[in-house]
Amino acid sequence: MIGASTRLVAIIGAPIAQVKSPDIFNRHFEDNGLDRAMIAVDLTAAQVADFVAMVRGWQNLDGFVVTIPHKNAMARLIDDLSPRARFLGAVNVVRRHPGGHLSGDMTDGAGFVEALRARGFSVEGKSALLIGAGAAGSAIAQALAETGLAELSIQDIDAMRAKILVAKLAAAFPQCHCAVATGDMRPFGLVVNCSPAGMRDLEPPPVAQSIIEMMPADGLGAEVITSPEHTLFLKAAAARGLAVQTGVEMAKAQFQLLAQAMGIMDGDHHA
Amino acid sequence: MIGASTRLVAIIGAPIAQVKSPDIFNRHFEDNGLDRAMIAVDLTAAQVADFVAMVRGWQNLDGFVVTIPHKNAMARLIDDLSPRARFLGAVNVVRRHPGGHLSGDMTDGAGFVEALRARGFSVEGKSALLIGAGAAGSAIAQALAETGLAELSIQDIDAMRAKILVAKLAAAFPQCHCAVATGDMRPFGLVVNCSPAGMRDLEPPPVAQSIIEMMPADGLGAEVITSPEHTLFLKAAAARGLAVQTGVEMAKAQFQLLAQAMGIMDGDHHA
Repeated sequence: MIGASTRLVAIIGAPIAQVKSPDIFNRHFEDNGLDRAMIAVDLTAAQVADFVAMVRGWQNLDGFVVTIPHKNAMARLIDDLSPRARFLGAVNVVRRHPGGHLSGDMTDGAGFVEALRARGFSVEGKSALLIGAGAAGSAIAQALAETGLAELSIQDIDAMRAKILVAKLAAAFPQCHCAVATGDMRPFGLVVNCSPAGMRDLEPPPVAQSIIEMMPADGLGAEVITSPEHTLFLKAAAARGLAVQTGVEMAKAQFQLLAQAMGIMDGDHHA
Repeated sequence: MIGASTRLVAIIGAPIAQVKSPDIFNRHFEDNGLDRAMIAVDLTAAQVADFVAMVRGWQNLDGFVVTIPHKNAMARLIDDLSPRARFLGAVNVVRRHPGGHLSGDMTDGAGFVEALRARGFSVEGKSALLIGAGAAGSAIAQALAETGLAELSIQDIDAMRAKILVAKLAAAFPQCHCAVATGDMRPFGLVVNCSPAGMRDLEPPPVAQSIIEMMPADGLGAEVITSPEHTLFLKAAAARGLAVQTGVEMAKAQFQLLAQAMGIMDGDHHA
């Protein structure tokens, strides 16, 4: 139970009720007898700058996770960015140093690749289709390109956004062939939905059935969405007998990365 | 355990580790199966205005309790004040209405008087010595004068602060004789320490032993300080056989008032 001396971390976003981090972190804190808690902060975009200003004086807060739609705004508000956060212009985790200095990282891509590694799926030499060139999609694209992917097709309802991401990746990772997806029918070994399409079960899945049909037998369908855990896209991929990776698996793989980024793994505060 | 949908209230102050409200509120929430939590926010004075700006967009926060040293600053930052909060220029609880409108009250005095009433101690016609004319002391003085106290002597290391409070009370409550304490030895039926003196056990108690010696047998010594629960002043009063009221008793008596002020008693949010 939270008390007056409990040290806090937060996750900020809007909406927030669907995120899994509070359950994962608070279960860890409880299992390890730590006087720590993660709170979920449902925060409107207009107040993100006020939140950052206030956090500088929030002395029992060690850091916070950032989720939709605040990842890009956060990158412009804090003091230091990791190289990958700077490349992506987005931040999903911020550490509050004593005195109020704020440093940020973007671990969505590393978390996604770590989840793939944990299940024994190798991206080296493969071709992938990625849907959604927003903050999470860009981070996953960067991590996949860095990890040895051979080809990456990127699709977004905002064609310019996809084009800009492709150009940035092409410049930074010349060994990975990046292109805007053109609707061509190719057998993608990995299809990742990084768009919010699928958060409501009634929406059409963001991946055409014909794409799923063409995937090789060792192909994998992956999601960033955590709720519902099994989206219509993942259900369609599973129905074809393909392996699937849920957003919840990615969230779990990210736990260590986020905790380290907030500096709460060493010198944990025991109750 | 806190999850992504948990509705929050907060208590802000500096320092914060000594406050009792998180234990009292979180015990109530747990006992009643409510998906609610109170967090303690250790907040520097320089960031109080940023906190207020940010809270307007904190959609799963219903309100917050304010403690030392932010009670006066808060009264200048929010939208609406109750009549007694306006009289005192201080706020100890703020309700966040949907949309971000913030209204405040000052329940320290009512909570103190409620604790007296719960133990059957009547202030009507009595004379009291009050030490500390800060936010809590002013609120308790106002509530005592309103409840029928006959005489009130007010002492503060800042003589001007005591003088200003006396003048305000004299204008508002002509039936209560208020004066700055002059060190005269009179038998006070009620002695209340509202100063921070006593938070560290090594300090000399704020009430002279000679004052305690002169109190009548049905007199009461009371504290606002919650930690240590039994201060040197209360120990000295108890040693003389007088009744004592701790800061923890006042905090418990305030629970209902604070919860109502934050609007979380009706339509409680069940897990």
